[in-house]
Amino acid sequence: MQPGLCAFPLTPMRDESVDDAALATLVSRLVAGGVDSVGVLGSTGVCAYLSRDERRAAIDAAVSAAGEMPVIAGVGALRTRDVLTYVEDAQAAGASALLVAPVSYHRLRQEEVFGLYADVASSSSVPVVVYENPSTTAFTFTDELYARIAQLPSIAGVKIPPPAPGTAADRVAHLRELLPADATIGVSGDWAAAEALTSGCHAWYSVLAGLFPRTARALADAAAAGDADAAHQHSSTLDPIWSLFKEHGSLRVMAAAAEALGLVDAPCLPRPLLALDEHYRPAVEDALRRTGLI
Amino acid sequence: MQPGLCAFPLTPMRDESVDDAALATLVSRLVAGGVDSVGVLGSTGVCAYLSRDERRAAIDAAVSAAGEMPVIAGVGALRTRDVLTYVEDAQAAGASALLVAPVSYHRLRQEEVFGLYADVASSSSVPVVVYENPSTTAFTFTDELYARIAQLPSIAGVKIPPPAPGTAADRVAHLRELLPADATIGVSGDWAAAEALTSGCHAWYSVLAGLFPRTARALADAAAAGDADAAHQHSSTLDPIWSLFKEHGSLRVMAAAAEALGLVDAPCLPRPLLALDEHYRPAVEDALRRTGLI
Repeated sequence: MQPGLCAFPLTPMRDESVDDAALATLVSRLVAGGVDSVGVLGSTGVCAYLSRDERRAAIDAAVSAAGEMPVIAGVGALRTRDVLTYVEDAQAAGASALLVAPVSYHRLRQEEVFGLYADVASSSSVPVVVYENPSTTAFTFTDELYARIAQLPSIAGVKIPPPAPGTAADRVAHLRELLPADATIGVSGDWAAAEALTSGCHAWYSVLAGLFPRTARALADAAAAGDADAAHQHSSTLDPIWSLFKEHGSLRVMAAAAEALGLVDAPCLPRPLLALDEHYRPAVEDALRRTGLI
Repeated sequence: MQPGLCAFPLTPMRDESVDDAALATLVSRLVAGGVDSVGVLGSTGVCAYLSRDERRAAIDAAVSAAGEMPVIAGVGALRTRDVLTYVEDAQAAGASALLVAPVSYHRLRQEEVFGLYADVASSSSVPVVVYENPSTTAFTFTDELYARIAQLPSIAGVKIPPPAPGTAADRVAHLRELLPADATIGVSGDWAAAEALTSGCHAWYSVLAGLFPRTARALADAAAAGDADAAHQHSSTLDPIWSLFKEHGSLRVMAAAAEALGLVDAPCLPRPLLALDEHYRPAVEDALRRTGLI
């Protein structure tokens, strides 16, 4: 499968339990908004905070609401034993691909992360996307590790953190040399998407698209059409949102937006995570209006 | 309770399950070695990697083997709901105090961490120790947050990360002003213990003591007797161990040492964590011999 524009919805809570109905509503918006795939239980989907039963329920709800659209399921956890259980569960629930982050408490070594992916690769019968997100996992892949992991069976691609401005083309070209020709290189960090997608990235793993699929679609389409100016213009329009993402974390901003839109119950995040309080919330709503998102 | 010299044993695995018998053996060594308290399910006890049942089994084994010696149980988890469950379980199993780290995937804000401790404080009927460990939780407490949390009921003290060399006296004096008079200030990061304990720290939360209680006891006793030179001399003797702790993480070094001593099955860590491989293991065994630990 090609993730293309892969949208990551929240996994909203209601009274500290997964709100399956609200998740299904969010996923239905993504189908209607024309994304290419749905990324359930990503970082935005608070994967790491959920029990086995909650994860199963979330994937069931997403797969059902997604219909023909492929669903990529996050299966990250601290312990390999648990990751392998979630791999089985996600496959049984109809996930088309898996997203695996090297979640850490004790900071992981390169060899440990290789071992994690080797264990997952030998258990998975669907494609596996390697998920690098140093801001949540405190782990940075070396090029050598990327190359080794990419040789494993089932490994279909990588989800890279946002390259620094001006560096995406070099980074993607370098990864292109490291990785097998059919490996998908996808970017996360929405503010870097315009540059990355016009620099050879195949996929956009997007938090913004999880709530505002049409806006993300327009940016991705401009990039796919080779219109870099238009892609960057779409992105510049969203600068107030990118600023908030960098300040508060995209999860909290999207949670506040979903609550403001009435799409989810408030609070929609699992404690100890808190939505932005009344001090910051007006800034989010103001940015949503200024960027035309609401 | 006063933690004093609080020793943190590994929670050893056997075939990826908690090896209760090996844990009991480790705890019995601590009682025989004359520590003041046992810290089960700390970072060294791989708390964050264990299921509810495994945590209960580990606390049961530790409390039973500890006899009259107080047991402090780690109850950290990503989600507040789970932390509160572990608080109840640990109290029911006979823990004398609880150790709570602000475990993160999404980096936590100060207000979120306050909320976590407020939730725990209102659920706990035993003393709670605040556990700051930026290297595992990616969270640093502000002074203001320490002061606010310390006002909560049940909060008995703090476990601080190792102060930089030469700064412990200032740091402890500053915390002394911030915190209630009866709050315990304890240090972790064994290489900083001699300076911290001779600079006003009350407690030493020690990884070394979890396997080598008598060696840690000697250092702590020298500090308690006001003999700073002797305390620092004990610590200097252990420099080869401290170097390995800083290079590989104290968990992996102690796991390798426990495996070398035949006290635990190998591998004793839950995957994806790996014991040090044959490339590094001779350095650990050499350091253990040079420092007289074996």
